[in-house]
Amino acid sequence: MPRYKLTIEYDGTPFVGWQRQADALSVQEAIEIAIEAFSGEAVRTQTAGRTDAGVHARGQVAHFDLEREWDPFRVSEALNYHLKPHPIAILDCQLVGGDFEARFSAKARHYRYLILNRRARPALEANRVWHVAVPLDEKAMQEAAQTILGRHDFTTFRSAQCQANSPLRTLDRLDVKRDGDLIIIEASARAFLHHQVRSMTGSLKLVGEGRWPVTGLKAALDAQDRSRCGAMAPSSGLYLMAIDY
Amino acid sequence: MPRYKLTIEYDGTPFVGWQRQADALSVQEAIEIAIEAFSGEAVRTQTAGRTDAGVHARGQVAHFDLEREWDPFRVSEALNYHLKPHPIAILDCQLVGGDFEARFSAKARHYRYLILNRRARPALEANRVWHVAVPLDEKAMQEAAQTILGRHDFTTFRSAQCQANSPLRTLDRLDVKRDGDLIIIEASARAFLHHQVRSMTGSLKLVGEGRWPVTGLKAALDAQDRSRCGAMAPSSGLYLMAIDY
Repeated sequence: MPRYKLTIEYDGTPFVGWQRQADALSVQEAIEIAIEAFSGEAVRTQTAGRTDAGVHARGQVAHFDLEREWDPFRVSEALNYHLKPHPIAILDCQLVGGDFEARFSAKARHYRYLILNRRARPALEANRVWHVAVPLDEKAMQEAAQTILGRHDFTTFRSAQCQANSPLRTLDRLDVKRDGDLIIIEASARAFLHHQVRSMTGSLKLVGEGRWPVTGLKAALDAQDRSRCGAMAPSSGLYLMAIDY
Repeated sequence: MPRYKLTIEYDGTPFVGWQRQADALSVQEAIEIAIEAFSGEAVRTQTAGRTDAGVHARGQVAHFDLEREWDPFRVSEALNYHLKPHPIAILDCQLVGGDFEARFSAKARHYRYLILNRRARPALEANRVWHVAVPLDEKAMQEAAQTILGRHDFTTFRSAQCQANSPLRTLDRLDVKRDGDLIIIEASARAFLHHQVRSMTGSLKLVGEGRWPVTGLKAALDAQDRSRCGAMAPSSGLYLMAIDY
């Protein structure tokens, strides 16, 4: 059966997250309804990362199989037509080999977190950022971030509901920079634990406020204790940017 | 009477524009209601630029007078509190002299226009950009833009409803660049005619498509004929960025 790889952008605000749920609309369900609407085939998609409610994507990747082989450009056009009421856009569709797995073939995942750091709440970026009104020192945040790169037990920055077998992950990038009122955090790894980026961001914010010393982030990591994590950053500022294969 | 200068951000989508209208909510009315709510004084604000319905602002400026002198930080805090249901944020409030006029003291106005230039419609940037699905050559657009800088009769790029006495304006900047799928147009002048930025953008898009030669923009300007203007770009992509005093 032909396998299709989708690259997907969405505004996570109105959805319960990527994954299908019984009681409310998910991104996955919206896309699967659209696939069935154009192809007549009921399929389940597999995704690279199950984003939570309110989390956005600029480059989510999913795959699915259909009996029939379609021109992939026609697939993306048809899906975008059927997805129209929803803030979901198919940016690309490719035919891939049967050994391609959106989740297991992924070599790296790239997330971005946006903090709007100013007194006034967001007007244009409502639901697109975390609004932090107290001034943050992004240089201290960047310095702290560099101390937790590499392979570690990330238990401190892991949701209690995380289903991964191991808390060991290798963090390849965690960069913090400022662009005017925006603080931009870029995080890359082969894989992340559940809530890892939002947990690290919540703790970085405490460093930025000066409530934690620069050394506090590594100390929290080393404790391997979820209770040492700063309050988790909200979903509205998180973007799944790209997956490398 | 003390005079207050506001710097304002808003999402223009839900409003009929800056200016008060009888039948629907304007940004001006929302702000004036908030001023009365905290101060008890019913005032009229004066603005640097009357943005149309759907046009956004990152740095709109308005002024108003109150009988009482308040700490300007308290004014911005109080206004943001009372504006809360609306996508309007007061970024700054300053006490200014009685000779300050938001409109007439302005030395330069800076607008930005965003085109999302890709096949798929916007998911995250809905109502924030003009979606143009056909590929645009931003280098040709930039080349054309440079030919209409300076002082000219901008009748071609002026709304039929424009109330300015003269169609003469001096265009100081019109720059077109690409950042991935986004085409960013920056326009600066002491003052613009009504619909001038959206009219120039609509014509630049025809150059970008190759439907007009690079020389077509200047030819349209020189014709001094509104019927020579390309179809006007929609309001959703336009941002009033800043006013210089």
